Amino acid sequence: MFSKILIANRGEIALRIIRACRELGIQTVVVHSTADADAAYLKMADQAICIGGAPSVESYLKIDRIIAAAEISDVDAIHPGYGFLSEKSHFAEVCRACKIEFIGPSVAAMKAVGDKVACKNLAKKAKVPTIPGSEGAVEDEKEALKIAREIGYPVIIKASAGGGGRGMRQAHNDVSLQAGFRAAQAEAEAAFKDSTVYIEKYVEFGRHVEVQVLADNHGNAVHLWERDCSMQRRHQKLVEESPCPVLDPKTRKALCESAVRLVKEAGYTNAGTVEFLVDKEQNFYILEVNARIQVEHPVTEMVTGIDLIKQQIMIAAGEKLPFKQDQIPQNGCAIECRINAEDPTKNFVPSPGKIQELRLPGGPGVRLDTHVYAGYTIPPNYDSMIGKLIVHRPTRLEAIATMKRALSEFHISPIKTTIPLHLQILDNPNFLSGDVDTGFIERVMLAK
Amino acid sequence: MFSKILIANRGEIALRIIRACRELGIQTVVVHSTADADAAYLKMADQAICIGGAPSVESYLKIDRIIAAAEISDVDAIHPGYGFLSEKSHFAEVCRACKIEFIGPSVAAMKAVGDKVACKNLAKKAKVPTIPGSEGAVEDEKEALKIAREIGYPVIIKASAGGGGRGMRQAHNDVSLQAGFRAAQAEAEAAFKDSTVYIEKYVEFGRHVEVQVLADNHGNAVHLWERDCSMQRRHQKLVEESPCPVLDPKTRKALCESAVRLVKEAGYTNAGTVEFLVDKEQNFYILEVNARIQVEHPVTEMVTGIDLIKQQIMIAAGEKLPFKQDQIPQNGCAIECRINAEDPTKNFVPSPGKIQELRLPGGPGVRLDTHVYAGYTIPPNYDSMIGKLIVHRPTRLEAIATMKRALSEFHISPIKTTIPLHLQILDNPNFLSGDVDTGFIERVMLAK
Repeated sequence: MFSKILIANRGEIALRIIRACRELGIQTVVVHSTADADAAYLKMADQAICIGGAPSVESYLKIDRIIAAAEISDVDAIHPGYGFLSEKSHFAEVCRACKIEFIGPSVAAMKAVGDKVACKNLAKKAKVPTIPGSEGAVEDEKEALKIAREIGYPVIIKASAGGGGRGMRQAHNDVSLQAGFRAAQAEAEAAFKDSTVYIEKYVEFGRHVEVQVLADNHGNAVHLWERDCSMQRRHQKLVEESPCPVLDPKTRKALCESAVRLVKEAGYTNAGTVEFLVDKEQNFYILEVNARIQVEHPVTEMVTGIDLIKQQIMIAAGEKLPFKQDQIPQNGCAIECRINAEDPTKNFVPSPGKIQELRLPGGPGVRLDTHVYAGYTIPPNYDSMIGKLIVHRPTRLEAIATMKRALSEFHISPIKTTIPLHLQILDNPNFLSGDVDTGFIERVMLAK
Repeated sequence: MFSKILIANRGEIALRIIRACRELGIQTVVVHSTADADAAYLKMADQAICIGGAPSVESYLKIDRIIAAAEISDVDAIHPGYGFLSEKSHFAEVCRACKIEFIGPSVAAMKAVGDKVACKNLAKKAKVPTIPGSEGAVEDEKEALKIAREIGYPVIIKASAGGGGRGMRQAHNDVSLQAGFRAAQAEAEAAFKDSTVYIEKYVEFGRHVEVQVLADNHGNAVHLWERDCSMQRRHQKLVEESPCPVLDPKTRKALCESAVRLVKEAGYTNAGTVEFLVDKEQNFYILEVNARIQVEHPVTEMVTGIDLIKQQIMIAAGEKLPFKQDQIPQNGCAIECRINAEDPTKNFVPSPGKIQELRLPGGPGVRLDTHVYAGYTIPPNYDSMIGKLIVHRPTRLEAIATMKRALSEFHISPIKTTIPLHLQILDNPNFLSGDVDTGFIERVMLAK
């Protein structure tokens, strides 16, 4: 087992990894920017190393400085968390070249699933349903038009290196296709320094359902059931739950087994998520693979009783999975609300600054993953998520009641948060009956 | 179902009951003293009513004021929490005479189990093992001497109306028996206005193991397994866990079934706890019955997945238990540490005052039941418990690791707490191996 791990991340996920390491008896080194220098979670690590200024490109994305910190502090391994360098195969490659284990899949597997076009080909080999679309990158508008007319509108243009909704455009006719194609290319180039885009049939009113997988280096791969993440705003997940409230048992089985087949086909190891689009008729199509731990991993931890961060570490250290597929339960219902420091009344503008008053929810069925406390100053430089509120109850109705109760206890001042929107979502009859899709919040709840 | 419940208590248990009611869609009225007027949990209730001054006898123990508040606010029922009036059958009697349901057992059942001598006779009828001792009250020193010589030293003198260690004395010879008898009588008179005492064989190196029971008004009674509460200081529990780490399966079954037999014999309904002393040879003897919810109820909630406060409310409202005995699991291991505002370096003197800094533990496996927050002032008037930290993990070793991690994250300033003692306990080899008894902390850990 590792004796010391460097955490190349910040905020709640840095604290989450520190917690797992402490429980495993592993020492931790956390790197941080000058903007995060006062955060209390740094004190919970055994060592904290400042690696640069507030902009991520000056610190959390600086591979050379992170490697230098890892070498100086003599760690065995690096946990990348999510975001930042977590899905950069080059970073994994550098770590391993320096004989520091990267807690994640092999470089080859990251490359295989990281490129959306390559991933689609993998899925076809593994007999995992894919959405009709271009066979790989689309070079120019002319080719885009040809493909769109073949598969039929509506279509969606996506960046091959994309994520988080950037480099994505829908098109319902030739004119919007041409404009969207150019916009998606430009956005992809700006966001990922890679303008490659591809085209797919746009599945209307689809749900986002993803499958958590774990695979060790001894040929064992299992799924940990699904998460439904259909409640999104601008392709950013707001509420996640397990199980998916509308999946029939046959579809659940097929979906989860598809994910395991894909992982095995890719030779993928460690934790990963296979994302699917599920339509009204319970047809499902693979969207992409996330080669890292995800923000919403706690809902899976609650229903399965398995600590995913500990599993990531143990797999990276060469251990075998300690359970078989039939030993992984999906008990009760877990829901997560992402608490973002944003003002829902002002188009979700970030709301950074000092937390003057804070009263946190607790009690039965409630888990809170947050690095903030009264007196903490939320820096303006990063993602606005300041915590994740997770509930776990025997049934979905009970979980919703507990979540509403917990959200109503959550008092934070003067920072504005997404809590009022979450309370609206939990009272929405469509959410209650499970009749939602990834466009629901914007199309219905936030429509003027 | 009730539409409005009055909570005749304060602090964390008042908040715990508010939480259960909110999740059940029941309105809440909380009564409070002037010392608790600024507590934030009052705002989580639908209504808060001040019933008097800081001393409990002026507020939380004032039956007439509580009933007046209940009548004015038009509630259906009163939840007494623990302590204060929770085990006073007279209070239950007054509530019901006013047509306000008391959330607890019948007056007859409270009386039957509330008097220790009567309870022992009940136990004999139900074939529940009792400790050898006096058949009822012991009138004077002469009788005490006779009985002590008959059953053999060491013996223990106990107040019939006792609890929390008050009115209790051990004796290892005739001289200490006579002195102890007088002291126990005086203490019992002072604490409970009832000087009745009785004598029992003192079981050395015994563990405190208790069984949670639930019984409805339709003849159904079940146990929810046991809690081990052997880690005590001055008869006050500090750490509680479920399951008991040393009970063999046969003893566990016999112990839990004994508790159900006793409850049925007593015609007891609602939630209750049957406390046992377990010796080194796994013999067990009934100690007493607590006719109320207990501080340590969360460990049972974690391993069974059953919300005990909700069950109390539903039983009082006339509902049937929604599960059978064989549907109640004992999953994994749960541990609770009571966080008291006391200074362990100064003989546990209370440490009230304003909380300036507060960082609470969280993350996977952690539940926190507390009413405090940064800026809250702990009043000097009440019990020093300011919160309960509960962990739940698949195994005891994992639960201990999570508890140590969570305790180490718990930062509170300038208030002193029992956290350093808890960290010591969790590192103690006897605690780890399960080789402890109710005297262990004082005899070994706190011995100079």
